[in-house]
Amino acid sequence: MEKFLLVLEVITTCCAVTQSMTGQERSEEKSECVSLSPMMEAVPAPPESERVCVFGTGDLGRSLGLRLLQAGYGVVFGSRRPHSSSSLLPHGAQVLGHAAAAQSAHLIFIAVQREHYDFLVPLANQLKGKVLVDLSNNLKKNQYPEANAEYLQSLVPGAEVVKGFNTLSAWSLQNGPSDANRQVYICGESVEAKQAVIAVAIKLGFSALDRGFLSVARELEDFPLQLFPQWRLPLRIAIGLSAAFFFYLLIRDIIYAYVTQSKDISFRIMVSLANKVCPIVSLIMLSLCYLPGVLASFLQLYRGTKYRRFPDWLDRWMLCRKQLGLLALGFAFLHVLYTLIIPIRYYVWFKATERTVSMIRENRTTQFDMTTAWRGDSYLSLGILGFGLYVLLGITSLPSVSNALSWREFSFIQSKLGHLTLLLCTAHTYLYGWNRFLSSSTYKWYTPPGYMLCLVLPSVVLLLKLLLITPCVDRTITRIRQGWERGADQRNPKDSQPLIP
Amino acid sequence: MEKFLLVLEVITTCCAVTQSMTGQERSEEKSECVSLSPMMEAVPAPPESERVCVFGTGDLGRSLGLRLLQAGYGVVFGSRRPHSSSSLLPHGAQVLGHAAAAQSAHLIFIAVQREHYDFLVPLANQLKGKVLVDLSNNLKKNQYPEANAEYLQSLVPGAEVVKGFNTLSAWSLQNGPSDANRQVYICGESVEAKQAVIAVAIKLGFSALDRGFLSVARELEDFPLQLFPQWRLPLRIAIGLSAAFFFYLLIRDIIYAYVTQSKDISFRIMVSLANKVCPIVSLIMLSLCYLPGVLASFLQLYRGTKYRRFPDWLDRWMLCRKQLGLLALGFAFLHVLYTLIIPIRYYVWFKATERTVSMIRENRTTQFDMTTAWRGDSYLSLGILGFGLYVLLGITSLPSVSNALSWREFSFIQSKLGHLTLLLCTAHTYLYGWNRFLSSSTYKWYTPPGYMLCLVLPSVVLLLKLLLITPCVDRTITRIRQGWERGADQRNPKDSQPLIP
Amino acid sequence: MEKFLLVLEVITTCCAVTQSMTGQERSEEKSECVSLSPMMEAVPAPPESERVCVFGTGDLGRSLGLRLLQAGYGVVFGSRRPHSSSSLLPHGAQVLGHAAAAQSAHLIFIAVQREHYDFLVPLANQLKGKVLVDLSNNLKKNQYPEANAEYLQSLVPGAEVVKGFNTLSAWSLQNGPSDANRQVYICGESVEAKQAVIAVAIKLGFSALDRGFLSVARELEDFPLQLFPQWRLPLRIAIGLSAAFFFYLLIRDIIYAYVTQSKDISFRIMVSLANKVCPIVSLIMLSLCYLPGVLASFLQLYRGTKYRRFPDWLDRWMLCRKQLGLLALGFAFLHVLYTLIIPIRYYVWFKATERTVSMIRENRTTQFDMTTAWRGDSYLSLGILGFGLYVLLGITSLPSVSNALSWREFSFIQSKLGHLTLLLCTAHTYLYGWNRFLSSSTYKWYTPPGYMLCLVLPSVVLLLKLLLITPCVDRTITRIRQGWERGADQRNPKDSQPLIP
Repeated sequence: MEKFLLVLEVITTCCAVTQSMTGQERSEEKSECVSLSPMMEAVPAPPESERVCVFGTGDLGRSLGLRLLQAGYGVVFGSRRPHSSSSLLPHGAQVLGHAAAAQSAHLIFIAVQREHYDFLVPLANQLKGKVLVDLSNNLKKNQYPEANAEYLQSLVPGAEVVKGFNTLSAWSLQNGPSDANRQVYICGESVEAKQAVIAVAIKLGFSALDRGFLSVARELEDFPLQLFPQWRLPLRIAIGLSAAFFFYLLIRDIIYAYVTQSKDISFRIMVSLANKVCPIVSLIMLSLCYLPGVLASFLQLYRGTKYRRFPDWLDRWMLCRKQLGLLALGFAFLHVLYTLIIPIRYYVWFKATERTVSMIRENRTTQFDMTTAWRGDSYLSLGILGFGLYVLLGITSLPSVSNALSWREFSFIQSKLGHLTLLLCTAHTYLYGWNRFLSSSTYKWYTPPGYMLCLVLPSVVLLLKLLLITPCVDRTITRIRQGWERGADQRNPKDSQPLIP
Repeated sequence: MEKFLLVLEVITTCCAVTQSMTGQERSEEKSECVSLSPMMEAVPAPPESERVCVFGTGDLGRSLGLRLLQAGYGVVFGSRRPHSSSSLLPHGAQVLGHAAAAQSAHLIFIAVQREHYDFLVPLANQLKGKVLVDLSNNLKKNQYPEANAEYLQSLVPGAEVVKGFNTLSAWSLQNGPSDANRQVYICGESVEAKQAVIAVAIKLGFSALDRGFLSVARELEDFPLQLFPQWRLPLRIAIGLSAAFFFYLLIRDIIYAYVTQSKDISFRIMVSLANKVCPIVSLIMLSLCYLPGVLASFLQLYRGTKYRRFPDWLDRWMLCRKQLGLLALGFAFLHVLYTLIIPIRYYVWFKATERTVSMIRENRTTQFDMTTAWRGDSYLSLGILGFGLYVLLGITSLPSVSNALSWREFSFIQSKLGHLTLLLCTAHTYLYGWNRFLSSSTYKWYTPPGYMLCLVLPSVVLLLKLLLITPCVDRTITRIRQGWERGADQRNPKDSQPLIP
Repeated sequence: MEKFLLVLEVITTCCAVTQSMTGQERSEEKSECVSLSPMMEAVPAPPESERVCVFGTGDLGRSLGLRLLQAGYGVVFGSRRPHSSSSLLPHGAQVLGHAAAAQSAHLIFIAVQREHYDFLVPLANQLKGKVLVDLSNNLKKNQYPEANAEYLQSLVPGAEVVKGFNTLSAWSLQNGPSDANRQVYICGESVEAKQAVIAVAIKLGFSALDRGFLSVARELEDFPLQLFPQWRLPLRIAIGLSAAFFFYLLIRDIIYAYVTQSKDISFRIMVSLANKVCPIVSLIMLSLCYLPGVLASFLQLYRGTKYRRFPDWLDRWMLCRKQLGLLALGFAFLHVLYTLIIPIRYYVWFKATERTVSMIRENRTTQFDMTTAWRGDSYLSLGILGFGLYVLLGITSLPSVSNALSWREFSFIQSKLGHLTLLLCTAHTYLYGWNRFLSSSTYKWYTPPGYMLCLVLPSVVLLLKLLLITPCVDRTITRIRQGWERGADQRNPKDSQPLIP
């Protein structure tokens, strides 16, 4: 239900966006904002205009019909009660009974809900050899045993069912491609049928992608229901970690100060505390992003082959690495901002003044401490360089950038530079801790400070990685990657060598 | 004229870029910078090399001819005076009279200006069934009643006219695709003709996009003349707002101080004033980016249908939302930088010292004010989080990123997170104002400070949005989005339900 | 060798990534991370499943075979010893002798190393008219006189050789596309053959790009061996400049202070020095990015034609401009961070306190200096605006963004805004220097400070650019760009005019 509400909410924007587009074309001359995308509108039905049929005169059917007319197609609606519904249909479209409509065109869009597919069964003869485009979606995943498209095919075996257009919002179907609605995914058994559908998609201004056979339909039908599936796990981890460390530090810093010295420093929650949580979570998630790769390598070393699959938990984990990394970058970004505004804070200014004043009143003098200077500056410098690389990793993970890279370049950045980033950030944190690791005053209520806890994981990852790149281990790994199997019979040497260096 | 000058200016770069490319191919071996794109050069005329014809031996004709030869085509130039012009033409090309040239190939590029198309009329017979590619552009929009391509078609009805390649710079035509010149837009009536042209485009290393029928030609011909059409309105708004607030604050702060206390604080213009203008403009533009969506919803509520168009001003406005948002982000970015350099400023350092010194001289002591600390920190914290989301919105509006999102995900970010950003930034500004709203000293010359003015719009937008997401209103809106119309006759329930949740 | 080791290192990630993918499909139901890309796995061999043949039962052959089976193809392996090797092959594949296998399919993947191609010669008859896909790569560039694919074609002239799939990692071949492995480059003489291969690529979930004739094969075979070829030169320049200025400033600042006043300020290396090197290198590289364009224009002016090529060094230089610019942006980014953390530094805090304390002890008072305030704020303001534009340039150079721009828009940003950025940054640096240019104390050991040195190049570039945009010069340049040649015979006026404004 919550999901559904969300969707409705979403629709607000969608509709607004696309509604406006159609309007804009009309007012193209005077308009200051001309967009290339929805250019078909003005097109008059052209000479060799082909005819397509749409079953279903609901909103989706009407929207699609309008769009098809604009793209220069002749549109025939198939309706149970042609006369009652015709009033609402886009101007220029024909309305016939289902049977007549089916015969009038080779391509038939099924803009009807799955529950009503059965009305197609009696039309079997008229539908023989026709291409049926199934646009339907469900309200929740796995609502039915088989995909709607497969169900449709089973009802009308004589027809060529193609799944498609369902990943679009109804409003882009009506108004043409918008930012997030350029791509149309298509699947089906017959290549010819798919070609025909793709041709229509292109004429409507979309770019179509053939995803394979009809068995893929289920996945296509689940797609529009997904809301960042790959981001869920990483987001949960991020939120969990943040919450955990927030309360941990809340107790250690604020509450501790209140209990022991009954000092109220609650205001620190807003910045000081946030600025402790962010870097901690960021560092942990960054190491979580490189840990599975390392584990995978050790698993392969242990098994002595690459031809056996990893346990599912490892698979799932590895699929989330990109998201883990990007979230880590987000937290690092916040950490940077939180750090940079420190000197503007009232509290900081107040303390500084107080210190200076007391120095004078008590006539103290401070000595410049070279070590502190060295430590502080290196600490900052490492952080800056680390963040710089962090951002670089983020940029290369942009689809358009990573597509422009050869796999070797991409891997170089994500693996080599990635681990370097981890190294720099870890060193940055160690320098932050510095000698406080030893002084017992650090361990309030016998609990270690946050930065110590967050150092465990990255240190482990770096150590394991160090092990992996030692020549001897590296050599074995490499042979395994190249198909070598421990204890496998030596096969035809000609084939056994790797082709790709 | 100014436009024309600009273009010339631009050419400087273009030419340089692409000239260099051709050179680079020659020196591929020793070159350190090898690019994949312009790889055809070295190709010798292959066995099944096809023949194409180019009319016009001007710069464009010669450039195109050279490129075609490199891609392995046989090139025949059609010229009025074959012998005089042949000297300048690329080596390997044939030159014939127009008639002979036309007969020699199926595909003919018309690299001649529209004014001279009439010479094609007598060639009607030779051109019958040929594919004519119209590459022409005009010097300004709406220069002629109909598009050049349509004019050409009317002159040679027997031929298949295809508009294309005109969106490229002459220099990419000569030297192959460069960064901003990969895509070739094509339109025409005959699918076969378009296929033939697309094939050539691909062989030249471009990616071709079929935009539909010949009636689109006008749009394609206007495209190269456009300079950020969608950005004009938002840019004007941004500049207008900046100027207005700049002068308003100039008077309130600097001039006021000069007149009343005859204090010269003009130096504040550079940073302090800029840092007031930026956030104000940013916040206003962000709310301008979400206002139209809200208005549209209310309009639909009022009309009780989604099938009527919005007034043009609203359409235009909604088409600029992305640009409005990105400009707002730009100003927010400057605001952040301007804020972060505050402590480095001489003026700030001077004031701080002065304060400390006076404190000691007058032997004053200050009390730490918990409220100020809370307020200041929350103010900063909200700003940081707001900016973080701001940046996230910006990233998701990158073409490659938004294409990777399903429409539901895209809308979730742009709508839900967008309004959250607006909320955070507004709260940030309210905290900045804090209790100064009440003190009369704030209202110099009875004028409210800038941040108060800029709070009006976002507050309104947020209130309206709040109204819209109240269940009762939301329900109605949703039904309207799903095609329901107030007072419409209830039609076949089967079709009326929405297919896409 | 170093290269080779790198590759092995890289493989670690690759393999891990893709291994995981296959696993994930199996566990799709319960998995929380579902990705759209590798969806073919679950597909059962479909009715009209086509048959393809794979020569070579090594790792690559087996990986490819598995993938093909998953995509619904029937797979026949060709092996010298069918029975020995069959045990290792993916379940569902057939194994035959080479001859029998060749006859069983139209499409044959050659997953064998070039050294062993000769075994194909005796199969000439069976291979006649077949499509041979050459997947081979070499271990280093120019290993053989001609490309492997061309060599293969020469061995089997009767077959249609297509080069392809070699730009993928073996692991994406096995497991389907991953982030950096979507695109498949293809080249060959026969269009039909290429179409057949592209069809397979698409079914495997890749997007295929036809790169032209077989003569391109060499380039495709070199591609996977490349590691940022276009970045090498710029990176070397960046590193060289950084090193040079680092040592120069090390001597001038730290060592000088140590020698003359025997003061140890070595701690400054970490931040102060870094923050001098970064802006210097950034500014120099930015001007290096705009210098070649200016030089090119002058060269054309001097030659009076655009039809002669530039010297290679200029070509190479111009091809690296984008990279030069992006590196410059990187350094500017670091400079900004280094500047913003200044007030957090222990050293700065210490100095500030010291100053205040001494002021009071010695009972001094300072006068607020309006000029300093003006200068300092303008200096900061220019820097901020410059950086803002800098970032804008960076964003527009993202592939997805620059593709969305018309060439005119792209050139406007890169040329106009680019030079404006250079102007702002140069002014920023001049303001930094301010009056110190005159005071002799600036010239320690008679050496000019770094910012002076780095000002030379940008100033020159800006001056030359200024010259170029003076109307008279601009007019000549423009005519040259439009194909006009000094002292060229006037040819047919009709054709000589430029078509594209």
